[in-house]
Amino acid sequence: MAEIESGFSVALRESEGQILAVDYYFNSYAELGLQRLMVSDQPRTDAFAAAIKEALAGGETVIDVGTGSGLLAMLAAKAGAKRVYALDQSTVAEAARETVEKNGMGDVVEVLNANAVDFQVAEPVDLIVSEWLGHFGFAETMLDDVIECRDANLKEGGRMLPSGVELMLAPVNSSVLYEYEGPGFWKDEVHGIDFSHLEDRELEQALAIKTHVPSEDLIAEPKGLVKLDLAKASKEDVWQSGELEFEILRDGEMNGFAGWFVAELTPSVILDTGPEQPTTHWMQTYFSMKPVPVKKGDTIRLKYNLGRHPVETRSLLMHLAVGETSYSFTVG
Amino acid sequence: MAEIESGFSVALRESEGQILAVDYYFNSYAELGLQRLMVSDQPRTDAFAAAIKEALAGGETVIDVGTGSGLLAMLAAKAGAKRVYALDQSTVAEAARETVEKNGMGDVVEVLNANAVDFQVAEPVDLIVSEWLGHFGFAETMLDDVIECRDANLKEGGRMLPSGVELMLAPVNSSVLYEYEGPGFWKDEVHGIDFSHLEDRELEQALAIKTHVPSEDLIAEPKGLVKLDLAKASKEDVWQSGELEFEILRDGEMNGFAGWFVAELTPSVILDTGPEQPTTHWMQTYFSMKPVPVKKGDTIRLKYNLGRHPVETRSLLMHLAVGETSYSFTVG
Repeated sequence: MAEIESGFSVALRESEGQILAVDYYFNSYAELGLQRLMVSDQPRTDAFAAAIKEALAGGETVIDVGTGSGLLAMLAAKAGAKRVYALDQSTVAEAARETVEKNGMGDVVEVLNANAVDFQVAEPVDLIVSEWLGHFGFAETMLDDVIECRDANLKEGGRMLPSGVELMLAPVNSSVLYEYEGPGFWKDEVHGIDFSHLEDRELEQALAIKTHVPSEDLIAEPKGLVKLDLAKASKEDVWQSGELEFEILRDGEMNGFAGWFVAELTPSVILDTGPEQPTTHWMQTYFSMKPVPVKKGDTIRLKYNLGRHPVETRSLLMHLAVGETSYSFTVG
Repeated sequence: MAEIESGFSVALRESEGQILAVDYYFNSYAELGLQRLMVSDQPRTDAFAAAIKEALAGGETVIDVGTGSGLLAMLAAKAGAKRVYALDQSTVAEAARETVEKNGMGDVVEVLNANAVDFQVAEPVDLIVSEWLGHFGFAETMLDDVIECRDANLKEGGRMLPSGVELMLAPVNSSVLYEYEGPGFWKDEVHGIDFSHLEDRELEQALAIKTHVPSEDLIAEPKGLVKLDLAKASKEDVWQSGELEFEILRDGEMNGFAGWFVAELTPSVILDTGPEQPTTHWMQTYFSMKPVPVKKGDTIRLKYNLGRHPVETRSLLMHLAVGETSYSFTVG
C-alpha cells in the first residue's frame, strides 16, 4: 500500500474526525521544511532578491503578503524600504518575527499574524510584494487575497511585484511521462494480468501531474494563454477561455501538454519555470492525453478553459480539448 | 509559494468547508495514478507475486484486504486459489471488478466494496493476503483492520501473507539529508540574511521525511526494533519501547537515523526496503537530529518508543532519544 505523502502531514489536524480545509492550507506553511523548500529554490530566491533590489530606490513602504520565512520582507528592508508590513496567516509568523529581530530589522519590518484580506494600512503603500505563485501559476488561488490587499492598500501609481504573469502550454511527445509514469503504463500486462482498460480510466480521472518535463519532448513552440498585468487584474481575470494553435515540429505522437508559468517580477527580472530553464520547486505540469499520431507541419488546435475548481477551493479546473476529445484536469 | 503536493488532491473533497479524514484516506486509493505507483513498483510487485505463488498449492480460499487494483487477488487466482474475496473500501473496487472480469477470473475472484473490519465470511479462509504496508511499515495504521479481519475470518492454522515484518534503524552521517535537504540548510546566510536559529526550530518540528538514504551514509550496522509475527500479533503489539546499541564504524558526525521495514512475505520471500536494496516507492524514512561528533568504535545508545499519533489517526509518533536529547517525530 502506498503511503500518503508526508510533506504536509503535520497540517492534517483532526478534531473528532474532521479536518478544516482552511486550516490545512495555512498550517502547511507553518512547517519550516516547506519554507526551506522555497528559500532553497535558488532560481526563485535569486530572482526575487534581484527584483526587490531593482524595485526599491529607498524610503518606500511595502507590504509582503504571505511572508512565510520573512525572506522577501527582509530583502525589501535591505534594499532600503522605510517600512515593511509582513503578513502571514500561519503560525510561521512567529519564526519570521524572530528572524527579523535577529537580523536587526525590527525597526523596519513588522511581522503581523494577519489575514491579507482584512489588513488595512493607515497610509497606502508604494509596493506590494508577494510570492503567491502555485502549481501552474494559479493553484492555491492565493492571488485572490493579494488582489484584495492591493485594492485596499496600494497607493495610486504604486507597484506590484510580481508585475505580471503568463501561463504557457506546449504539446509533448514523452514516453517517460506517458508510458512509464502515466496512463500508458497499464498497456503492458503485469505478471500475465491485463490491466489495459485502466489506461482510459486513468485518463478520465484527469489529474494534472507536477513533474519535470524533458525539454526535448516538446513538439511545438510554447504558446501563452492567460496573461495578467497585476497592477490592474481583477480576481476573475484569471479565468479565461480561448483557442491556441500549435505547429508540430516533428513526426511522432502527441500524448498531452506541458504547462508552466513565466512571472515578470519587474520588467527586467523574469522568473521562467519552463522546461528549458533551471529547475524550480514548481517544476512543470503535465496534462496527459490519449496519444494521437502527428506529423511535422500539422496544426494542433487546442481549446482551453481555466476555471476555479467547484469543490476544491485551492485547485484549478482546466478543460483542454483537441478536436472531438476533451479533458477536465484538476490542478491541485 | 510552494504548492500543496498534488498527488492526493482529488481526495480532498470539501463539503461546506469540511473534509472528513476517513474519506481522505480511502478516496486517495481511488486514484489510478496511486494504484499505478504501487503496481509499477517492481520489487514490491515481483515479491508479492513470488510469495503468493509459493503460498498456494491450489484449491485454497483467500481474502485480500485492501485489494486496490485487484492485483494480489488475481495473482492468488492464477496461483490456484478456489475462491478469493477481494475487499476494498474505496471506489477503486469498481475498476478492480472490471479487471477481474476482463481477465476471466470472475468465477474465482469476488470484489467487494466492503470494510475489512465488518467482513465476515461464511467459512474461515486458508490465507489472508494484504499489502497493508505504509511509510516506516506501520504508517496508515491499516494493519489494525487486517488483524481484525484475520481474527474473524482466518481458519485455525491458516496463513498470513506477509507473515512477518521488522522495523530497522541505523544512524547516519548524511550531508545530503541534513545539510542540503534538512535543517542544516538554515546555517548558511541567504542573501545576507541570518536564518540560523531555524535549524533548531525545524528540528523541534520533528517531521520524519520519506526519502532515499544513500547506503554509504549509514555509520553502523542496522538494528531491528519492532518485529511482529503476523499470525499471532495483536493490534497493540506494534507499539513498543526499547533500547538499541549501535557501534560506530567510522569517525564523523551523526545527524540522525534512517528507518525502513523488512517484510517477510513468506519465510522464503523477503521484501527489504532498506538503503542497500533496489528502490521501492516506500523509500526510507529519515529522522533528522542535531549533529553530534562520533568516533569509530563509539557505542550509541538509542531509546525508542513507537506509538499511535494522538491526533493524526493514520500517523505514527516515534520518540527517539540519544543521551540527554530526545525527539518526537511524526511519521505520516
